[in-house]
Amino acid sequence: MEIQKRIRIGVIGGARPQTKYRKLALEVGRLIAEKGAILVCGGLSGVMEAAARGVREAGGFSLGILPGNSPQDANPYIDMAVATGMGFSRNNLVVMNSDVLIAIDGEFGTLSEIAYARVYGKKIVGLGTWEIEGIIPVETPTEAVDHALKDFYPLIR
Amino acid sequence: MEIQKRIRIGVIGGARPQTKYRKLALEVGRLIAEKGAILVCGGLSGVMEAAARGVREAGGFSLGILPGNSPQDANPYIDMAVATGMGFSRNNLVVMNSDVLIAIDGEFGTLSEIAYARVYGKKIVGLGTWEIEGIIPVETPTEAVDHALKDFYPLIR
Amino acid sequence: MEIQKRIRIGVIGGARPQTKYRKLALEVGRLIAEKGAILVCGGLSGVMEAAARGVREAGGFSLGILPGNSPQDANPYIDMAVATGMGFSRNNLVVMNSDVLIAIDGEFGTLSEIAYARVYGKKIVGLGTWEIEGIIPVETPTEAVDHALKDFYPLIR
Amino acid sequence: MEIQKRIRIGVIGGARPQTKYRKLALEVGRLIAEKGAILVCGGLSGVMEAAARGVREAGGFSLGILPGNSPQDANPYIDMAVATGMGFSRNNLVVMNSDVLIAIDGEFGTLSEIAYARVYGKKIVGLGTWEIEGIIPVETPTEAVDHALKDFYPLIR
Repeated sequence: MEIQKRIRIGVIGGARPQTKYRKLALEVGRLIAEKGAILVCGGLSGVMEAAARGVREAGGFSLGILPGNSPQDANPYIDMAVATGMGFSRNNLVVMNSDVLIAIDGEFGTLSEIAYARVYGKKIVGLGTWEIEGIIPVETPTEAVDHALKDFYPLIR
Repeated sequence: MEIQKRIRIGVIGGARPQTKYRKLALEVGRLIAEKGAILVCGGLSGVMEAAARGVREAGGFSLGILPGNSPQDANPYIDMAVATGMGFSRNNLVVMNSDVLIAIDGEFGTLSEIAYARVYGKKIVGLGTWEIEGIIPVETPTEAVDHALKDFYPLIR
Repeated sequence: MEIQKRIRIGVIGGARPQTKYRKLALEVGRLIAEKGAILVCGGLSGVMEAAARGVREAGGFSLGILPGNSPQDANPYIDMAVATGMGFSRNNLVVMNSDVLIAIDGEFGTLSEIAYARVYGKKIVGLGTWEIEGIIPVETPTEAVDHALKDFYPLIR
Repeated sequence: MEIQKRIRIGVIGGARPQTKYRKLALEVGRLIAEKGAILVCGGLSGVMEAAARGVREAGGFSLGILPGNSPQDANPYIDMAVATGMGFSRNNLVVMNSDVLIAIDGEFGTLSEIAYARVYGKKIVGLGTWEIEGIIPVETPTEAVDHALKDFYPLIR
C-alpha cells in the first residue's frame, strides 16, 4: 500500500467537546480522507472519535495513538491503533507522527499537543481552540484542511 | 477498513542477520499476509525489513514502531510507521501491540522483546532464536505462522 | 535520608532565558532549599540550571529529569540526574514528579509542562511566563515559593 | 551534594523472591552503601525493596525508577523515587541510569533488564539469576559488589 507515503494530518481536541465541535471534527475528518491524507489522532473519544468517523465515512485511513496498554482501547473508527502504555506522554507521539496539525476546541491535553507542535516548528491550524502564538485561526473545516495541506502538494511524498 | 480487526503478529529479530534468517523472515512475512494477519515490527533493517518485504510482496499490511523521532526512518516496506522518540523503550511497544510473536535469530534487543512477551504472557514462537523458557521452537516459516495463529481463528475479531 | 518525604517543587522555564529570568530562577532555587523542599526540573541549561545552582548554594537537593540517554548530560548543579531517553516526552515526567510547579519565563516546552500541570490539576505559580487559565501570577521569587508551599505545611509528609 | 558524582549500581530482580534472595539483596544493598556507591532500582517490592533497605541501613542513597504515575508508589526505603508513568518501558530507564548492574534471582522483567544491559554493553553480575551470555556469575554479595565496582576506582567521577 502507499499509505505510508501520504501526508499525515494530526487532529487534536478534547475528549468531551460540545456538539458543534464534534460536527466540525467529523467534517474535518471527511475532508482529510477526500484529499487523500491520513488522520493521526489520540484514538479515544470526542474530537478524536468524530474525526476518525468522518475519515471512515469518506473511505480514508486513520491512525490512533493510545495512552493505554491495549490497541483495543481505540474508538471503533480507528483503522490502526497503536498502544503506548505511556499515559499523557503519548501526546508528544501524536504530534511527532503528524506532518501538520488541526486543533479543534480542546482543553489542557490539547494545549500540551499545541505546545509540542510549536516546539517542533510544525504548522498548526485552529478551529475554536486555544489562542497561542503561531496557531493559524480559521473558521471552517474546509479552510482548516486547505491551510493544513497547502504546503504539501503533491500529497504523495 | 477492517485492518484494526485483524490479528497482529509481531516479528522480532536482529538488525544484521545472516542471509538464511533474512530468507526465513521474508517467508514468514509472506505467510502472515496470506493468512490475513497484520505484521507488527520495529520498522528498521534486517529481520524487520525482510518480514515487511514479504508482507508487501503478498499484499498484506505492516506496522513499524520506530525508536527515533521520524516516521521517515522506516524501511521502505512498512505500510504504517509510528515514531516513538523513546529509543529502545520502544521494544516494549512492539510487544504490547502484538497478539502473538515470532522471534527469528536476534541479539539482545530481541531478547528484551522476548522477555516482554513473557511478562505479558503472550505466546512466542522461535525460529533459530534464544532458548528461553516458554518459547515454542519451530523449524520452518509455515510452522511458525501456523503455531502463531492457531489460537486465533477466526482471524477477524 | 528523608529526602523522599520532602515536598517537591518543579521549576520549569526556558533553556535560553534573559539574565533577569536567570536571576529570578537562582533566587527561587535558593528559597526552595531554604524552605526544605526539593527542586525538580529538566536538568539542562537556562532556568533549570539557575534554579539548581540556587539550590546548591543554599544546601538543598535537586532532581533533574533529562531527555537524553545519559545522566552525565545534567548541568553541574543537579544532585540526582535521571536519564529518560524519551526526548520531549520527559516534560510529562517533570510534572508528574512535582507536587506543585513554578514557571519562569519559558517558551513552548514550558507551555507543554504548564499544560500537563493543568491536566493533573496541579497548582502552578507563574513568574513572567505564559498567561494561561489557572496559573497564579506572582511578582517575586519569595511570593512564588510561598504560594507554591502554602498548601503543604508541614513540609514533611 | 556529591551524590550525582558517585557510581551507580543497578540492582535488578524479582518482585516476589524467595527469602534467600531477599537476604542476598539486603546484603548487596548494604555493601553498595558501604562502598559509597548509589543504588538504582525499580523502586517496588522484593529484591528492589530488600536492596534499598540494605542501603538505608548502611546510610547510603537509593534511586527508585517507578512504572506508575506517582513517586508515592515507592517502597519505604527509597531515598529518591521518580515516577515514569510508562509501565514496563521503565525497565529500560533502570538500566540507562546504572553504570553497572547486579541481577539477583528474577523472572522475565529482570530478563528484559539484563537484555537492555547487554544492548548498551554494560557489565552485569549475576547472583542466582538467568544464565545469559555476558553475565558474570558470582556466589556471594561481596563478590557481586566487588566485581561491579572494580572497573570504577576511584568511585567519584
